[in-house]
Amino acid sequence: MSQAMYFEDFYQGQTFDSETSYRVTAAEIISFGEKYDPQPFHIDETAGRNSFFSGLCASGWLTAAIVMRLRVESIKVAGGMIGAGVEEMRWTKPVRPDDKLRTQSTILDVRKSASRPDYGVVRSRTTVFNQRNEIVMKSIVNWLAPLKKTT
Amino acid sequence: MSQAMYFEDFYQGQTFDSETSYRVTAAEIISFGEKYDPQPFHIDETAGRNSFFSGLCASGWLTAAIVMRLRVESIKVAGGMIGAGVEEMRWTKPVRPDDKLRTQSTILDVRKSASRPDYGVVRSRTTVFNQRNEIVMKSIVNWLAPLKKTT
Repeated sequence: MSQAMYFEDFYQGQTFDSETSYRVTAAEIISFGEKYDPQPFHIDETAGRNSFFSGLCASGWLTAAIVMRLRVESIKVAGGMIGAGVEEMRWTKPVRPDDKLRTQSTILDVRKSASRPDYGVVRSRTTVFNQRNEIVMKSIVNWLAPLKKTT
Repeated sequence: MSQAMYFEDFYQGQTFDSETSYRVTAAEIISFGEKYDPQPFHIDETAGRNSFFSGLCASGWLTAAIVMRLRVESIKVAGGMIGAGVEEMRWTKPVRPDDKLRTQSTILDVRKSASRPDYGVVRSRTTVFNQRNEIVMKSIVNWLAPLKKTT
């Protein structure tokens, strides 16, 4: 999908697969962990082994950020994808060094915005898989999409 | 709060303020945007001015990551803060270059984990303020905390 999409282009049941998969490296896990989530299992392999996760794993917020990238690349909203909020997000399995992540997004429903007459709200579910097709994250997020100009 | 906290240490109504505030720079906004949320209003000042946001602003996922850091620093869970999921997250105002963010977290409720007998689930609301005391983000997240060992 290379053309910019407007509110009217989205419909319930529509699906979007990520265009690529994203390989998560140990270096990226540690660098993100040191900046934003400095806990033993996100910044050190040895400490990770002795933790709840039995090894180094990505901060859930790194996974969420990667998922945003995959979603932005595969769903081109006119003017940009403006987040209206997260309804739910769950991390179902640890993301490990060298995992390759891909996303499947499904549009759950669409409605016009009450507060912004030029925009609609698109509600979507995203499922995130690793290279073994295990689900590592699930989320329901809403974003705004502009209405086509009729003038 | 410098001592590691167990499930039994958390209670409804308990509050935690971030220990510091976090200054978000234009460089960090752009660097995060280029990596994870490459949209005009997160990577370029001029493009940002002509967008929905009327200026450069932080990806909501950068704000969420910074909030994780402030939460990890101010709530020291024994063994680390293990995210069990997000129930709700809303970005209520753009985060701009040089904004200083701080968090207030309140424990909403606590319950033992059905699936993991050694852990409890702590449900918390976090409100994120900028330097003008405007709310820029609100979230409800759950995390696991280990039970004190009784043996």
